[in-house]
Amino acid sequence: MAGTASIRLNFPGKLIGRKLEKQNGDILHVASCSSGKTPSLGDQRRLSLVSASAQIDVGISGTVNGKEVNGKHVAEEAVQVGKLGNENAADAALVTSLHGRFVESKFVYRQIFVIRSYEIGPDKTATMETLMNFLQETALNHVTSSGIGGNGFGTTREMSIRKLIWVVTRIQLQVQRYSSWGDVIEVDTWVDAAGKNGMRRDWVIRDHHTKEIITKATSTWVIMNRETRKLCKIPEEVRQEVVPFYLNRSSISTEQTDSEKIDKLTDDTAERIRSGLAPRWNDMDANQHVNNVKYIGWILESVPIKVLEDCNMTSMTLEYRRECRQSNLLESLTSPTARVIGDSNNNSINRKPDLQYTHMLRLQGDKKEVVRARTEWNLKP
Amino acid sequence: MAGTASIRLNFPGKLIGRKLEKQNGDILHVASCSSGKTPSLGDQRRLSLVSASAQIDVGISGTVNGKEVNGKHVAEEAVQVGKLGNENAADAALVTSLHGRFVESKFVYRQIFVIRSYEIGPDKTATMETLMNFLQETALNHVTSSGIGGNGFGTTREMSIRKLIWVVTRIQLQVQRYSSWGDVIEVDTWVDAAGKNGMRRDWVIRDHHTKEIITKATSTWVIMNRETRKLCKIPEEVRQEVVPFYLNRSSISTEQTDSEKIDKLTDDTAERIRSGLAPRWNDMDANQHVNNVKYIGWILESVPIKVLEDCNMTSMTLEYRRECRQSNLLESLTSPTARVIGDSNNNSINRKPDLQYTHMLRLQGDKKEVVRARTEWNLKP
Repeated sequence: MAGTASIRLNFPGKLIGRKLEKQNGDILHVASCSSGKTPSLGDQRRLSLVSASAQIDVGISGTVNGKEVNGKHVAEEAVQVGKLGNENAADAALVTSLHGRFVESKFVYRQIFVIRSYEIGPDKTATMETLMNFLQETALNHVTSSGIGGNGFGTTREMSIRKLIWVVTRIQLQVQRYSSWGDVIEVDTWVDAAGKNGMRRDWVIRDHHTKEIITKATSTWVIMNRETRKLCKIPEEVRQEVVPFYLNRSSISTEQTDSEKIDKLTDDTAERIRSGLAPRWNDMDANQHVNNVKYIGWILESVPIKVLEDCNMTSMTLEYRRECRQSNLLESLTSPTARVIGDSNNNSINRKPDLQYTHMLRLQGDKKEVVRARTEWNLKP
Repeated sequence: MAGTASIRLNFPGKLIGRKLEKQNGDILHVASCSSGKTPSLGDQRRLSLVSASAQIDVGISGTVNGKEVNGKHVAEEAVQVGKLGNENAADAALVTSLHGRFVESKFVYRQIFVIRSYEIGPDKTATMETLMNFLQETALNHVTSSGIGGNGFGTTREMSIRKLIWVVTRIQLQVQRYSSWGDVIEVDTWVDAAGKNGMRRDWVIRDHHTKEIITKATSTWVIMNRETRKLCKIPEEVRQEVVPFYLNRSSISTEQTDSEKIDKLTDDTAERIRSGLAPRWNDMDANQHVNNVKYIGWILESVPIKVLEDCNMTSMTLEYRRECRQSNLLESLTSPTARVIGDSNNNSINRKPDLQYTHMLRLQGDKKEVVRARTEWNLKP
């Protein structure tokens, strides 16, 4: 996929000069990442390079508040601040490690996660939302650790000066195997060019102990002016900031990259429509926009429950098209696009999916598109 | 609160012999924890002592799947399995630490968390759901690490033999301060007796660096037969298993413990009612019951948005009364119960809350109660 960004970007329009000429009035979706340390910037939802301001203070303060509770000391051991015993030294190392670290000469950022009890779904494995959250988290920590940051969340200095933000246009995940509660995984992420005016961010998730690759993902990002909401080219000054981090490596091979158009669903073509989906308060990010990971839950709302119960989602491609706010009601549309019930050979990586679906989320009011998606599913072994 | 469990348990009925004599036909809510490694057991939603089967395998396998991708090696560094360099040794220590550890002679279990980007809400601080998730996670890891487990998730061996599970009846959180993305916190948890037939689990969350206490929580648990769904006394054999872990310490002092009755709201007494709340697929746990943390989101759905925007929730008490399944539609009811707009002294811990609300979640169909709750809020500084 690298180098073929003009195919994959799926712009609603074409980049001409510094402005996006819209073909159909669509506004490109600004993907959310639900975070932000810099309220002054109008938009925290950018998932790329460096925010120095977000760096973690790992200094140890002398303030001790853990005093008397209910007539008994609460965790006396804990208040030994300043006297770093072995346990506290271990904790300090842990805390440093918890944020991840660079490997391979700073080209790859790696973070280790343990799957938590609340990150697994009804089938007891990590959900697709959990995987997407891990991708977001490592990307942001990569950014935080890189050292070229501006005053915005994920923006470079040169971007901040120009009021520019990163927006995601497309993301594809391939899941080889879902993890269970307590499993230890490691997420690697890196960035590369995507055509002349995009950036690609890839991830590989491995079983930490066996190094088995369990998930691969790739995403495409472009730059938007946060005030005009127009797409623009990457300014040369910004390119010079990010190019030193570029790594010419693809997590998903060109042949396996889903660069095909995702068909638009309509009332006529959708097999299932679920209306009245209302974002909750906690689906919002710091700008009262829906976090982009939350869309997955709504997409699943129009998938037959039998599929959710009996199949594993092996692949998902999301194409973001429009922002969504809490006041927006959503509709989730789904249609099967292929049905190749496989033989018993569930272990082959290259086998055809048993099911393929096309999805669309749209605003219930004016039917405008928010997200198009394609998912593939295999029957559980 | 310890020793006064008969007041706080809020049983729908009284414990007589081994059965619960119901007063009003209510079934006690079985709190969910969305996890489970033991599908054979009918119910994974128990949040207490020890599941040996869930212990993490930290051995390193020799299987290496990270081979050629797209003509290039993916993360060559990563495939050096078996040759533990310094970085890998550090990772091994990290992985061990990630699961938490015992402090204070095995009476207290401690786990460190870094607040992740997707764990913060619209106001950029960790949400109440996030805090509840941390409580659940440490409780489960405490269980996993204790070593007296049966074949069920959170049950002891003697409980497994008797098909008994733990269910939560009430939980109270006091939040002194909400954490931000990247903050490092540590969660301590321990258990104690709660009257003759309950168990109390407490938590204290601290800022890892300053040791400032930022959240306290306490919860009450009783034992239920997972087949008859009836409450029962703690069998003597079970008591002998858990008593060695009991620690006579309360995170929330007796005076600050919210043991008052939470009023039932009705169509007449509720100021705001939000209907049509539909559990999503991913709100379900391994038994297709709603995870107990998810209730918070629905409770907030009937809180005025101005309160969500302008106030911090400083206290929450949840009283679980009934299970909820995905097919159930819910209604969220809220009424203010006190309104003591404070002076400018926002820093005093003992000040009255600016707002207090009573909440109820009920099934939309038959209006049966699922959860009662009380929340307190202070205006943001």
